[in-house]
Amino acid sequence: MKLPSFASIKEVGPRDGLQNEKKIVGTKDKVKWIHMLADAGLSYIEVSSFVHPKWIPALADAQNVFAALERKPHVTYAALVPNQNGLERALLQDVDEVNVFLSASETHNKKNINKSIDEALSVIEEITKQSLFSGKKVRGYVSTVFGCPYEGEVNVYTVDELCNKLFSYGIYEVSLGDTIGVANPAQVERVLEHLLPKYDSSKFAMHFHNTYGMALANVVKSLECGVTTFDSSCGGLGGCPYAPGASGNVATNDLVHMLHKLGVQTNVNEEKLLQATKFIQSKLGTQIPSHVYRALQHKTVSR
Amino acid sequence: MKLPSFASIKEVGPRDGLQNEKKIVGTKDKVKWIHMLADAGLSYIEVSSFVHPKWIPALADAQNVFAALERKPHVTYAALVPNQNGLERALLQDVDEVNVFLSASETHNKKNINKSIDEALSVIEEITKQSLFSGKKVRGYVSTVFGCPYEGEVNVYTVDELCNKLFSYGIYEVSLGDTIGVANPAQVERVLEHLLPKYDSSKFAMHFHNTYGMALANVVKSLECGVTTFDSSCGGLGGCPYAPGASGNVATNDLVHMLHKLGVQTNVNEEKLLQATKFIQSKLGTQIPSHVYRALQHKTVSR
Repeated sequence: MKLPSFASIKEVGPRDGLQNEKKIVGTKDKVKWIHMLADAGLSYIEVSSFVHPKWIPALADAQNVFAALERKPHVTYAALVPNQNGLERALLQDVDEVNVFLSASETHNKKNINKSIDEALSVIEEITKQSLFSGKKVRGYVSTVFGCPYEGEVNVYTVDELCNKLFSYGIYEVSLGDTIGVANPAQVERVLEHLLPKYDSSKFAMHFHNTYGMALANVVKSLECGVTTFDSSCGGLGGCPYAPGASGNVATNDLVHMLHKLGVQTNVNEEKLLQATKFIQSKLGTQIPSHVYRALQHKTVSR
Repeated sequence: MKLPSFASIKEVGPRDGLQNEKKIVGTKDKVKWIHMLADAGLSYIEVSSFVHPKWIPALADAQNVFAALERKPHVTYAALVPNQNGLERALLQDVDEVNVFLSASETHNKKNINKSIDEALSVIEEITKQSLFSGKKVRGYVSTVFGCPYEGEVNVYTVDELCNKLFSYGIYEVSLGDTIGVANPAQVERVLEHLLPKYDSSKFAMHFHNTYGMALANVVKSLECGVTTFDSSCGGLGGCPYAPGASGNVATNDLVHMLHKLGVQTNVNEEKLLQATKFIQSKLGTQIPSHVYRALQHKTVSR
């Protein structure tokens, strides 16, 4: 089994995790949690989203969260930016990186942000231009790469074309999202075997959801294909908006635990991550989907 | 990705699943559930255990369950048999197959059945002899193959030696058990790369627990190594006796769903399996660990 010696984790819990939780976490607690995540060794944290507060009330305090952060050196504090107005707010807070997003499915894009894919691309092109001009790197999410809740299968040529455009705008990394958790390892291999001969593997991150329990199997196949960057959410927070009660983002805890078991380093301290998960659990009061969290919550991580 | 066209599922829910649940399910309900599992296409069901009722009260009705079963042709109704007394009770019920078990870890074996590995082997040898004489095939479980809660790592040479002995007794298949769910895909590959040059892959089943979320990733690696038989538990029932609240046996639902997605056939009907899971959930009242169950419980399986 050919595995890399190191994998990068991009922690999306404070944004992608909290935006789907019913309970709104207070700004101070968010900031404390983000500090704990950084202390656990997570070097990339998506802090919030500068979307209009009426769309995602849970992240309405993006500005205040950034203002209150004590940023550690060598940690990237990123934010999701949906449009021009969001970019202005993000730049005012001097975010470290700008994240943009669109869907590989026309219907999902329309339902999610009320734009066609072409309209979304125009906005992204402009946001990227301005971000780069302001000295900010830009990362792009492409969602529903492995399936759409409305359209079903998504054509890999569409995904390829979107990646090509995003890279041409100057986006340094595309996160391939399995928004509804339907990807399986054979499909992951097919998609990556299509993309990797054209683009360097370092230009991709994989964003898996554990809706049907396949996220870690998909991570292993991605590693075997040569991709070494993964998005995940502390505790597995986030759920799935399309299936109430189902798992959402793959848990950072489960991802990091498996990577370490596989001999792949991450610089993440599992015990500190467990403490950060316990903290946010106490604020949300919800059940934490992470398997590792459930197995270890009653004991120390020493074994 | 090299995958087989078909995989065999051995359903252990009625035995391995129920034995770890707090609530005792009534005999009639067990029988109805087993009938539903057979109707869903599961061709191998471990119905119960002929262990002394004082050790596992949840399975004290093994005899009555077998007596009440309406057996379908082409379905194997097996039972776990720990000793001579259990074998006599099992043969009286004319079980289709006898399952025996021991641990690859001396300490786990002692704590689990109060015997050394050598003592357990003697008992197994005798039970196997008598079972074969009575025309019953015998399947062997080796537990803690990938790690022991007391001893940690388990030597693959010990596992090899145990397999060798079990096969020499006339046992047709050894189920390699990850009792505490610590196996990772790289380790699965190492263990199978050690065993498969010596024994045919058809002589092994893999028995994974999802304690740390890695079960399906381990299944994929096993398939890639050439093993095509897997134990699993309807809904993921069973829990983990070593970590309260943690996941136990990999869920048949999640296993079958992934296999079908990978293009590996199983003959299991996912919709009927979902109904069987809903039924046993209504009797146990516990949360079902299966990811697929949680994602689909509010909708039909048609998508």
